[in-house]
This record gives sequence, C-alpha cells and structure tokens, in this order.
Amino acid sequence: MKKFMNSVDTVLSESLAGFASAHSDLLTLAPSGKFVSRKELKQGKVALISGGGSGHEPLHGGFVGHGMLDATCPGQVFTSPTPDQMMEAVEAVDTGAGALFIVKNYEGDVMNFDMGAEMATGDVLQVVTNDDIAVEDSTYTTGRRGVAGTVVVEKILGAAAEEGLGLQALKNLGDAVNGNARSFGVALTSCTVPAAGKPTFELGEQEMEFGVGIHGEPGRRRDALKPADEIAEEICTAILEDLGPATGTPALLFINGFGGTPSMELYLMYHAARRIFERHGVIIARSLVGSYVTSLDMAGCSITLVGMDAETLSYWDAPVHTPALRWGM
Amino acid sequence: MKKFMNSVDTVLSESLAGFASAHSDLLTLAPSGKFVSRKELKQGKVALISGGGSGHEPLHGGFVGHGMLDATCPGQVFTSPTPDQMMEAVEAVDTGAGALFIVKNYEGDVMNFDMGAEMATGDVLQVVTNDDIAVEDSTYTTGRRGVAGTVVVEKILGAAAEEGLGLQALKNLGDAVNGNARSFGVALTSCTVPAAGKPTFELGEQEMEFGVGIHGEPGRRRDALKPADEIAEEICTAILEDLGPATGTPALLFINGFGGTPSMELYLMYHAARRIFERHGVIIARSLVGSYVTSLDMAGCSITLVGMDAETLSYWDAPVHTPALRWGM
Repeated sequence: MKKFMNSVDTVLSESLAGFASAHSDLLTLAPSGKFVSRKELKQGKVALISGGGSGHEPLHGGFVGHGMLDATCPGQVFTSPTPDQMMEAVEAVDTGAGALFIVKNYEGDVMNFDMGAEMATGDVLQVVTNDDIAVEDSTYTTGRRGVAGTVVVEKILGAAAEEGLGLQALKNLGDAVNGNARSFGVALTSCTVPAAGKPTFELGEQEMEFGVGIHGEPGRRRDALKPADEIAEEICTAILEDLGPATGTPALLFINGFGGTPSMELYLMYHAARRIFERHGVIIARSLVGSYVTSLDMAGCSITLVGMDAETLSYWDAPVHTPALRWGM
Repeated sequence: MKKFMNSVDTVLSESLAGFASAHSDLLTLAPSGKFVSRKELKQGKVALISGGGSGHEPLHGGFVGHGMLDATCPGQVFTSPTPDQMMEAVEAVDTGAGALFIVKNYEGDVMNFDMGAEMATGDVLQVVTNDDIAVEDSTYTTGRRGVAGTVVVEKILGAAAEEGLGLQALKNLGDAVNGNARSFGVALTSCTVPAAGKPTFELGEQEMEFGVGIHGEPGRRRDALKPADEIAEEICTAILEDLGPATGTPALLFINGFGGTPSMELYLMYHAARRIFERHGVIIARSLVGSYVTSLDMAGCSITLVGMDAETLSYWDAPVHTPALRWGM
C-alpha cells in the first residue's frame, strides 16, 4: 500500500485536522471529531446535514458552507458514521427550523441516520439518494446505491434552504432531484482501504469493472477495457433508458473522477458523453467535471445526468462557498 | 496502459474539445487547436499567456479567465508548444498593452516561447518560473524546474493585470513572486504517457522518488517509502533552508496532487507541512490544497511555500473566475 500516511489508525483524524485547518474560514471540526460544521450558522434556516463513510472526499465535508451543507458526519473509511454523530450534529446546527439529513442509500448509513434522527430532539426529515443505476440490490444496499448525484442534491437543497424553504418542502425537492438523477460508474483499478492494506479487488491489466460502486463493490460485469466512446455509449444509453428524458429536457452533466483519474481523461469522457446525450435530444444546460465523489485512490469515473427545470437550474446557479464548490461569492 | 481514451493520437484533441465545451462560458479553443483564450478580452489590459506540455491539467488551460490568464498554448503531452502557437495567441489576445509570457523553466519551453515572442508583432516580456528546489540542472532543464509555484505566479499576475499594471511592472512582480516560491515533489508511482503506453519509470512496491519532476524526471534519490511526517519534515526543511524566511513571514502553503493521489492524502500532507512551517515561525496566511499541476496519473504530491506580503496577498484574494480556480465572483 502506497499512501501518504503515518499510521492506519490516524489517517482519518490527521486528514480531517488538515482539512479543518486549511478551511478554518468556513468550517469547524468538533473537538470530538464527530462532525464538521459551518462556522457561521444562519438562524431560522433548515439545517442540512449529510455524512457517510470517509474515503469519498470531497464528499461530504468539502460541501460544508454557505449554499450547501451545515454539517457532515465523517465515518471511518467506507463505514457509516454512528448515530451519536448525527444526533450531536443536529444539536449543534439546528437553529429551530428543523434538520434535513441527506443520506446515500447504503444499509449502514440508512440505519444509523434513522437512529440519529430518532435520538435528536428537533424535527428531522431525510432524503435518501439512490441515483446509481448500475445494479439494483448490491453488497451493502437494498435497492440502488447513492453515488455522485448526491452532490447535485446537496447543492440544490443548499440553495433552497438559504432562500428559506421549509423542512417538508426541502424534503420534497430533494426527493424530486434525486428522482431525476441517474449515475453509472466504471473502475480501471481498485482502491486500497488503509486498514486493509491491499486492493479491495483485483483487475487484470486489460480489464475494467463496469458499473462499479464507490466502495469498489462489483458492478454489472467484469469486462475488457474498451475505447472511451464505447464505454460512454453503453453508460449513456443505460442512463437514457432509465431516465427517459423528453426531447429538449435541460440537464446537468456531471463527470466524476474516483480519485486516481486525472482531469485530462475526465474531460475526454465529458466530450464523449455530451455528444451522445445531445444526439438523443438532451440539452446539456450545466456541467460539472472533476473528482467530487471519490473512492480513495481508485482510477475510474462515473457519468451522472440530472434532469433539470427552471427552479433547479436557478438553485444550481445560486451562490455557494464551500471548500470544493464555489461560485458567485 | 489503462486510460479513458479512444486512441493515442486523439487523446489531447478530444480532451481539449471536452474542456472547451464544458467551459464555453469562459473560454474558446481556437479552431486550429493551437491555443485556448478567454472569451471576453479586457481592452487595454496586458495579456497574460502561458502554456506548456499537456498532461499537467488543470495547468494551464484551467487558469484561463477573469483574474488569471488570457490564453494558453497546449503542447502535446509533456512536449513544449511550438512558437507559432504562442505567436498566434499573442495576435489573438494582445489588445495593445503588450503580452507577458509565463513559462516554466524547461529547455524546450524556454526556446519556443522565446521564438514565439520574437515572431509576435507586439511587445512581449517573459517570466520564467523555477521554483523546484529538488534538483539543480535536470533531464530537460538548465537550472531549476518550474512546477507548482507557477499557479501562484499566474494568479497574482492575473489580478495585477486586471488592476491595470503595465507590462514591465508585471514582469517585475512575476519575477519577485517566483523568487519567493519554493517547491519539492515526491512520487509514489510513475505516470504513463499515452504515446509511450507504459510507465515512464519503475518504482518498487515500497519505494518513492524523492524530488521527482512533473514529467516523472528523477529527483534527488530513490528511497524507501516513509511515514508522511518524515517525508514532510525533509521537504519542508529543504524549502526553509532554501527560502530562508524571516520569523513571522506570511506565506501561502500549497499542497499539490500529481493526478493519482486523492484529497484525503493531500490534506494529511497539508496537516504535516503546516505544523512544520509554523514551528519555524512561518505564518500560513493562505492555503491551497488540490491537484492543480499534475503529471497525468502519477500518484504523489508536491509542497510549495510562497513568501507573501500585503500586495501579493491582496492580489491572491482578488476575484478570479477560471475553470479550476474561482472565488469572489
């Protein structure tokens, strides 16, 4: 295992300490290490709280700040945070308007966020994302997995919360955005979890994992590595069949790197995917290209398409100031 | 070689096409493919032009836009752009106040930017960056190599140019910023150049290249992989000895990923480096953590420290709107 680290036991705490220190203008790491929260809370705004296993950075901590999340709860690598983390985060950032949890659909996360919601004193609702169409039930999941589309849900809900939407309206909006999001990933290499010390799975020199999950879970099939256009064609076709967008639908196209793939390749995949979607009548109204939902050091990427409308486009464009996403301020 | 690509011959053109299409609100790719330029030029502003071999993305194309560069000339992977590229870029973006080239110190780049400057009709001056203290002369370089510090030079000069500084003043400021910048990199894996199809160099499972260049050039030594704190200690000590900052000097600390290293490890290195510099009396006034000057898919990172003052801090903070760096607008 080749990583910049001192010991397996301290990878997460040292990384979080560096993250909090680099972005001390925006956020604070609780002394307990249980959650990261926005430095300045907005009174009367619904609190948006996310979290999940670490190893997917910048998700979720990188999206704490104005126009996105109020707090995130980092679990150990690829491990759900514990209910007390979510409970304490609610107590810290709920200013009275209630809290909305944004949870990726994995069994451990769903269970622990549920318990955290029950333990919290204020009103809590939840949006569970499940945008990954590669597989239905999987290793850690009943139903589809929540992956890169979660970033889009967090951005849109963050803007809506800043504008004063109430708890139930935010929950409804989040469900709607998630319902319009479809993702599909492919891995060219495995990732290596520090505590395991070796690759999660083995891929041959000419193989890819088609439909991989963001923890290295199996996808649809192990396949021979193919030209980028062929990979994009199969992914985009699957997304289009599942989403079924009407001709002329405005959409956000998001090419997400898994951590070990440089931007040159991500932009090449963007080029491939965009032309396919446009050929099918989708209007690419917004774009995001970069490594935002990673799987440690895995080489690979996912393609996400989110059907948008005037309201969600406006929320997407609204000012945001977080470590990983910033515009308009 | 496992990359998202269709063919070796079209990697660069397809990636550039995707990049230009994803950021069409900000920039344009010349039909010839020879340069990328800002969509809206500011009349009377000195034009800032950079470029170099591709494979270091987002450097340089990702820094085209308000508050940074007016144009960049992408060469083939790890290969200098040709003089006609720079000449055509000058003709396209010089609005009469002259052009400043920002050139990383590699023999091919220096020679070709020199020729481009001679071929251009307007006034052209150049800033050559050489912030890499790992080695003196190297494979492609007489003198020190220009690496991650180049981003800081581009940001500060970009802000100064927006504020109306003249050509010679910008050249002087750029030389001064470069003179206060020190970088040092370490690789955990090689990169793979598409046209070569195999890793540029071989590293054992427990080895690192200490002082690596951004094309995979040899550094100071091949060494056993060490704990992050030990790596940071040796790098930061070398930087401090070379820069010799007075106690209380404000500085920008930049942890740069080489393309294959995820942000979790970069923040861990930030944590390590920051404490070392602070222990030596340096004030970390600004921070940047991310993969901004990459070496294709190489795993590794560099540490850059730039001594700052009130003027350069103000230029660093000034609004910028480019694909890879954006704040204040």
